[in-house]
Amino acid sequence: MPASSARRSSAPSPAPPRGYTVTKDQLASRLDRIEGQVRGVKRMVDEDRYCIDVLTQISAVQAALDKVALGLLDDHAHRCVVGAERAEQPGKTEELMAAVGRLMRRG
Amino acid sequence: MPASSARRSSAPSPAPPRGYTVTKDQLASRLDRIEGQVRGVKRMVDEDRYCIDVLTQISAVQAALDKVALGLLDDHAHRCVVGAERAEQPGKTEELMAAVGRLMRRG
Amino acid sequence: MPASSARRSSAPSPAPPRGYTVTKDQLASRLDRIEGQVRGVKRMVDEDRYCIDVLTQISAVQAALDKVALGLLDDHAHRCVVGAERAEQPGKTEELMAAVGRLMRRG
Amino acid sequence: MPASSARRSSAPSPAPPRGYTVTKDQLASRLDRIEGQVRGVKRMVDEDRYCIDVLTQISAVQAALDKVALGLLDDHAHRCVVGAERAEQPGKTEELMAAVGRLMRRG
Repeated sequence: MPASSARRSSAPSPAPPRGYTVTKDQLASRLDRIEGQVRGVKRMVDEDRYCIDVLTQISAVQAALDKVALGLLDDHAHRCVVGAERAEQPGKTEELMAAVGRLMRRG
Repeated sequence: MPASSARRSSAPSPAPPRGYTVTKDQLASRLDRIEGQVRGVKRMVDEDRYCIDVLTQISAVQAALDKVALGLLDDHAHRCVVGAERAEQPGKTEELMAAVGRLMRRG
Repeated sequence: MPASSARRSSAPSPAPPRGYTVTKDQLASRLDRIEGQVRGVKRMVDEDRYCIDVLTQISAVQAALDKVALGLLDDHAHRCVVGAERAEQPGKTEELMAAVGRLMRRG
Repeated sequence: MPASSARRSSAPSPAPPRGYTVTKDQLASRLDRIEGQVRGVKRMVDEDRYCIDVLTQISAVQAALDKVALGLLDDHAHRCVVGAERAEQPGKTEELMAAVGRLMRRG
């Protein structure tokens, strides 16, 4: 991902449209799906479904949650850390790193 | 971890009551709570709450899911692997280990 | 990891040859490679190599360690849990699950 | 999450001394220790030590590696992302997030 070439000023780029970031709607629909998956897990437990199948489904929920978390983290890093006033960036970076630590289960 | 004492035969022990295992009710109520937590995350996104707070909440959901997964895994290991007929134990162990790999995100 | 000796009944299947299990030699050579990888990471730090490249290398070490851990876990589950006397299996299963929890960083 | 508006200068702040960051020496000594721990794991395997004890030691290595990774990530975020020219920050943030994804095993 080579950073772009022609940099003249270093004026904070005016929130360039980025294709990779999740929109709020995408986020909401992913979370809806995750909620449905959790409900599905509960139903599987109610119906005494085979444990291994329940565990597979839980792994799928965790993958979906990790994806949401990475999307939020990316968005936050771009908008609220890099997009912050210079003086606020160190504090914001701290906060971001603490969140990463928690997501890595070392929080 | 008091393993029980006098079992000479190897009849799969008839599901001895074990204190450490989650009951189905506990599991259901934990999954209800997780479903509520996911709904809470969605609400936070809807309300444009601060990303870091949303991420903290997602980490909490993941911790709760890991706990449910470990409870199920433990129960399955006791009842369905160790509790299986000798001849079935190797196959069941395979299955269990594959589930562990998926939970460790190496599946 | 000598499975116990005197099993009369319940014919624990006589350690069927399993292709998937790591041998002690394979384990030793994987650990040698991991040791070399860690040394490589240190060299990268000494040489002020780009952080992201160092982090990529650390992720590779973690993947390799997870693979070793899963191999050991699988071997232990087959030989020492399933291969144990019936009476010892519950205690051994406890131990195994605690190790899984630690590997999932919930120990 | 609207990025803030009024930013006048964008001079990368001159790397303010931060107490929380690991020094290169600390990093080197942690990596030495990790190398020793990996060697210890190999010795345990050679000596046929109890699997569960080997696994506990592997979990310790992973915790130590995660700590090194988080230290590097934090340092990189402060110096190379936040400390970069404005125009380079988005690209650097991409790179950082990809590294986080790999550390979360979703790379």
